[in-house]
Amino acid sequence: GMMGGPPQGGFPGQGGYHGTFAAPSPAVNDPMWGYFTAIAGQDGEVDAEELQRCLTQSGFSGSYNPFSLETCRIMIAMLDRDMTGKMGFNEFKELFTALNGWKQNFMMFDQDRSGTMEPHELAQAITSMGYRLSPHAGNAIMKRYSKGGRIFFDDYVACCVKLRALTENFRKRDAMQQGTVNFQYDDFIMCTMAV
Amino acid sequence: GMMGGPPQGGFPGQGGYHGTFAAPSPAVNDPMWGYFTAIAGQDGEVDAEELQRCLTQSGFSGSYNPFSLETCRIMIAMLDRDMTGKMGFNEFKELFTALNGWKQNFMMFDQDRSGTMEPHELAQAITSMGYRLSPHAGNAIMKRYSKGGRIFFDDYVACCVKLRALTENFRKRDAMQQGTVNFQYDDFIMCTMAV
Repeated sequence: GMMGGPPQGGFPGQGGYHGTFAAPSPAVNDPMWGYFTAIAGQDGEVDAEELQRCLTQSGFSGSYNPFSLETCRIMIAMLDRDMTGKMGFNEFKELFTALNGWKQNFMMFDQDRSGTMEPHELAQAITSMGYRLSPHAGNAIMKRYSKGGRIFFDDYVACCVKLRALTENFRKRDAMQQGTVNFQYDDFIMCTMAV
Repeated sequence: GMMGGPPQGGFPGQGGYHGTFAAPSPAVNDPMWGYFTAIAGQDGEVDAEELQRCLTQSGFSGSYNPFSLETCRIMIAMLDRDMTGKMGFNEFKELFTALNGWKQNFMMFDQDRSGTMEPHELAQAITSMGYRLSPHAGNAIMKRYSKGGRIFFDDYVACCVKLRALTENFRKRDAMQQGTVNFQYDDFIMCTMAV
């Protein structure tokens, strides 16, 4: 049965898995689907604790320090459009795509693999991602995300996640793409407190 | 010398402290000044690591878990109007006043001293502080700051700090107190990324 014929029982677990638990869905053929379901558990969604465990166990951070729970919560909040505090499969994949991009970007600046970049490099990294910010805003961000004069990978990712989520929230309200939005207090608090 | 006469040498350290290290200043008479200078060290300002150490050593959290470094950074960011990433004496006192208020508020809801409150109690606590938010905004905040269906003291304080800082940033721009602000993208990012 290994040369292309129909599966004769398959390897342990697989037959039972497909037959008993999973409804047929296009996601089943996705290499990340098995990974996702293993992490998500019974409720089929990933919360911050599950995400932290998964990013730690998968070795995503490599030689960098693992992500703090706080950063994982920011990641979930960024993608959690239905505000359940959890992530479905599509959001999970979207997050990994973004994380891979940010990691590559970080490693470009962290040439000596110290696990940190210099604060002024954060401003460069943000610019290289296509954001156009004033030196004043860049300075505020540098101060907020540096520790002992350095930017650590975990904080860099938290910064990228927030910047992306806040920009997305702003753009959604800037229908005419004018670069200005008239915020009601309640809406301002909602879309800034959640990330 | 214990009955009201002039000090006859005083207890160890005091004379030398005033005479040698501290320049005369109104702050010297403040009971918190010695505490502040001991924490602030050479540069005379308190950064997030110093704040965390001080809040842990002073036992501020009591039976609650000590504050995470992340929450301490948010506290500094809230009060750091000159954006140096550090706090002077007046900001330090302002923070302690706010912290004491939040702690009392938290303990009112945490009657069983579990160190947590329920998510819906967070919405009540926010209302009792005078904020008027919609159920939708309250819900977003609850989701963001809860862990395993509970709100922990550390996260509660981080939430209070952010809400206060964001509201202050909004008010400053709402000159006519209309409840709406027209934000430029750059300004929006600066005043939301910094907290």
